[in-house]
Amino acid sequence: MTPIKKKLLIDMDGVLADIYGQFIKYEFNDIGLTQSLTDLTGKLEREAFKYHDKYVNSENFFYSAIPIEDSIETVRRLNDVYEVYIVSSAMQFPLSLTEKINWLTKHFPFLSWKQIVFCGTKEIVCGDIMIDDHFKNLDTFQGQTILFTQPHNIDKPTDNHTRVNNWKEIKTILL
Amino acid sequence: MTPIKKKLLIDMDGVLADIYGQFIKYEFNDIGLTQSLTDLTGKLEREAFKYHDKYVNSENFFYSAIPIEDSIETVRRLNDVYEVYIVSSAMQFPLSLTEKINWLTKHFPFLSWKQIVFCGTKEIVCGDIMIDDHFKNLDTFQGQTILFTQPHNIDKPTDNHTRVNNWKEIKTILL
Repeated sequence: MTPIKKKLLIDMDGVLADIYGQFIKYEFNDIGLTQSLTDLTGKLEREAFKYHDKYVNSENFFYSAIPIEDSIETVRRLNDVYEVYIVSSAMQFPLSLTEKINWLTKHFPFLSWKQIVFCGTKEIVCGDIMIDDHFKNLDTFQGQTILFTQPHNIDKPTDNHTRVNNWKEIKTILL
Repeated sequence: MTPIKKKLLIDMDGVLADIYGQFIKYEFNDIGLTQSLTDLTGKLEREAFKYHDKYVNSENFFYSAIPIEDSIETVRRLNDVYEVYIVSSAMQFPLSLTEKINWLTKHFPFLSWKQIVFCGTKEIVCGDIMIDDHFKNLDTFQGQTILFTQPHNIDKPTDNHTRVNNWKEIKTILL
């Protein structure tokens, strides 16, 4: 009998896709500003980047994001062991939906459309393990919670969640 | 203290949007054929309509669908009493995503983007009540399940689900 695989829910922005890097690049190209990590610490993207809304609503913003280091190879291996779902709070930016699907198809071709979830709030998804960079998503999740370090959460106490700083640490915990 | 509202998950195609009506209209316009309800009984859309894939992949197919009778007014009232989510298996047809959001904004403007979920499989969503026209979605759901009658399920035994034939019956059960 095949053992039942655990449901592993993986966030997209800030966990698979380097969205912070996109904001930094867009801001530099737009107004010539490069903020330091100290400037960004503890601030949500919307607070840290003055023209946040302009950037996220511009064509190609999500599609041209760089995958976070080691994410592709690790998710490929996790996909054999877990029932993997990519769960993204994408509804606030409707333009991003198609770009996000295309991005996943390009960088994670081994995942199927059945493994993608776009939602407004993550309170509606359930599973065994969640990897996310936002406390609001992890705090309401019933299973094991892994906080992926990003500048906006780096200064916060980790509470009941397990903090990881990169995909190598995820590999150590989950594989 | 505000009582916690129950999470009510409502399917889109075949429950809010008259997708069967769309297929019938597209098929007639395309090849001049009008199938009777008897022809359609017990068949999934893909089996019943020869050019299914062409229609669902054509621009405007989802956006121009007619809301099912009484759905708008009933969902408006349910939205006061329940924590309503619209949950649609939309990932197989990436073109549909934006159309579906625009359709909801047009016909259900009282719902927010936070209440929309697009997924590949509904095994990943959880809540208290699910209204759907497909057994595969209801069968894996942990809460109360309501089967919305459509030609493809009309000939099947209802099993553990409660069958409703229209939105008036949903109003009677849930309000």
